[in-house]
Amino acid sequence: MPEQSAFDRAIATHESGPHTRTGEFTDDWLIGHAVNGGVALAMAGSALAAELGGTGHPDPFVISAYYLAASSPGPVTVHTETVRTGRQVATGEVSLWQDGPEGEPVQKVRALATYGSLDSLPDDVRTAAEPPPMPGPEDCTKALDAPAEAIRGVNILHQLDLRIDPATAGWAVGRPSGRGQLRGWLRMPDGREPDPYLLLMAVDAMPPVAFDLGVTGWAPTVELTAHVRARPAPGWLQIVTSSRNLAGGFLEEDADVWDSTGRLVAQARQLARVPG
Amino acid sequence: MPEQSAFDRAIATHESGPHTRTGEFTDDWLIGHAVNGGVALAMAGSALAAELGGTGHPDPFVISAYYLAASSPGPVTVHTETVRTGRQVATGEVSLWQDGPEGEPVQKVRALATYGSLDSLPDDVRTAAEPPPMPGPEDCTKALDAPAEAIRGVNILHQLDLRIDPATAGWAVGRPSGRGQLRGWLRMPDGREPDPYLLLMAVDAMPPVAFDLGVTGWAPTVELTAHVRARPAPGWLQIVTSSRNLAGGFLEEDADVWDSTGRLVAQARQLARVPG
Repeated sequence: MPEQSAFDRAIATHESGPHTRTGEFTDDWLIGHAVNGGVALAMAGSALAAELGGTGHPDPFVISAYYLAASSPGPVTVHTETVRTGRQVATGEVSLWQDGPEGEPVQKVRALATYGSLDSLPDDVRTAAEPPPMPGPEDCTKALDAPAEAIRGVNILHQLDLRIDPATAGWAVGRPSGRGQLRGWLRMPDGREPDPYLLLMAVDAMPPVAFDLGVTGWAPTVELTAHVRARPAPGWLQIVTSSRNLAGGFLEEDADVWDSTGRLVAQARQLARVPG
Repeated sequence: MPEQSAFDRAIATHESGPHTRTGEFTDDWLIGHAVNGGVALAMAGSALAAELGGTGHPDPFVISAYYLAASSPGPVTVHTETVRTGRQVATGEVSLWQDGPEGEPVQKVRALATYGSLDSLPDDVRTAAEPPPMPGPEDCTKALDAPAEAIRGVNILHQLDLRIDPATAGWAVGRPSGRGQLRGWLRMPDGREPDPYLLLMAVDAMPPVAFDLGVTGWAPTVELTAHVRARPAPGWLQIVTSSRNLAGGFLEEDADVWDSTGRLVAQARQLARVPG
């Protein structure tokens, strides 16, 4: 049996009661003091797959997560619920809880999701956003090579091979483009290949697109919805994030993810709070 | 007291127990045999506002609805729950239920949403997608003037003053552009001005963008998430819907809504099933 990858360990949960599972967040996936929202989403999605496992609908098609409070390193209790099981899809709900300062349960994330079988979908691709022209991974900037002050406390970067198109990396040296777009490549350094759960992490793995708009500081996610549209092929993932609407203290951030065959495999949109 | 508008009557609910409200769907908002998903979303959002009313967070900022089964004309029972109340926002859950053929309760829609106060947001607009150049309402095609066979059973059109940019209306006469974009104008014929709930309906009021890709038949929504970004000004709403990914039997459909001052007031994305 192959050793479990770092990512699979990070999102693993184990049944601990009826519709209840437990997992653990570690320091490794922190951005500042909060566990990366994509990792929390992948844990929630994976736990809900276990809940819905008997329904014949194994894969997340769409998941909407509401981030109620920052997730911290430590144990996580996961509650799952089957909302409806249909012929083609099943819908469930999942919540992640951690102990608060007095030991009281605090809900960190609640999500709704619809699952189906990616392998049962017809293979037609009628339209698909093309991946943008950009340099290959070897000609992009490793996120870990960014100036130390730009990535201090961004522990998650040590878990990823994340590379940023230099044309969209000016913000790291004080020259944001103002266009509101970041482009990058992602793979796992331990060779863990993409699957739907890695996609759920990938849609929130890029630096905040607000950086490219000249906004500094992390932008906490209020809500994130991801569509998984196909099972990704092995290899690099290509990610483009963009925003068209930074206003009123919030911004919308879209993420598109292509696999190594150039197929659009995930689309996500989040509403994030802009640091004051 | 002014007479209640048709739209307000359609989405009204009344408290009938703890965290329980009742409403009624009528024939007026049908598309084929199903009540329009935007009307169901607006009813859910309005009911959840009542649940969260005491929290000081009156307006929907983001709502994600999962459509479990088609909503039908008849009574609706609405269950609401406060998930978390914070200083700046509150998050809640809402579900719409109707009786099934044997009188058993059937869940039709479940949604999560975060509310806040639109009026308390700072007025900064750092980026904003501009409305596209298109003819004014007077030079667009009234949806009700479409060929009879194209709008048979689309009762909702009689409740709206919906006008389609002729450049994106070719599908109505068998000539879809293949670009996957529709542009239109919306206002309520009885003068009911836009507010956040009308925006929740507006993001699902246009014909399916799949029509412009040459796909006929209605595309049932699996999930729809809407961001309300500002309180809309009185007057026409300008709506653009688009899709970049029709594949595997599903399509993503994005909707952007601008108010009469040209401000982007709502953004929405849905995952819909493509008619086989």
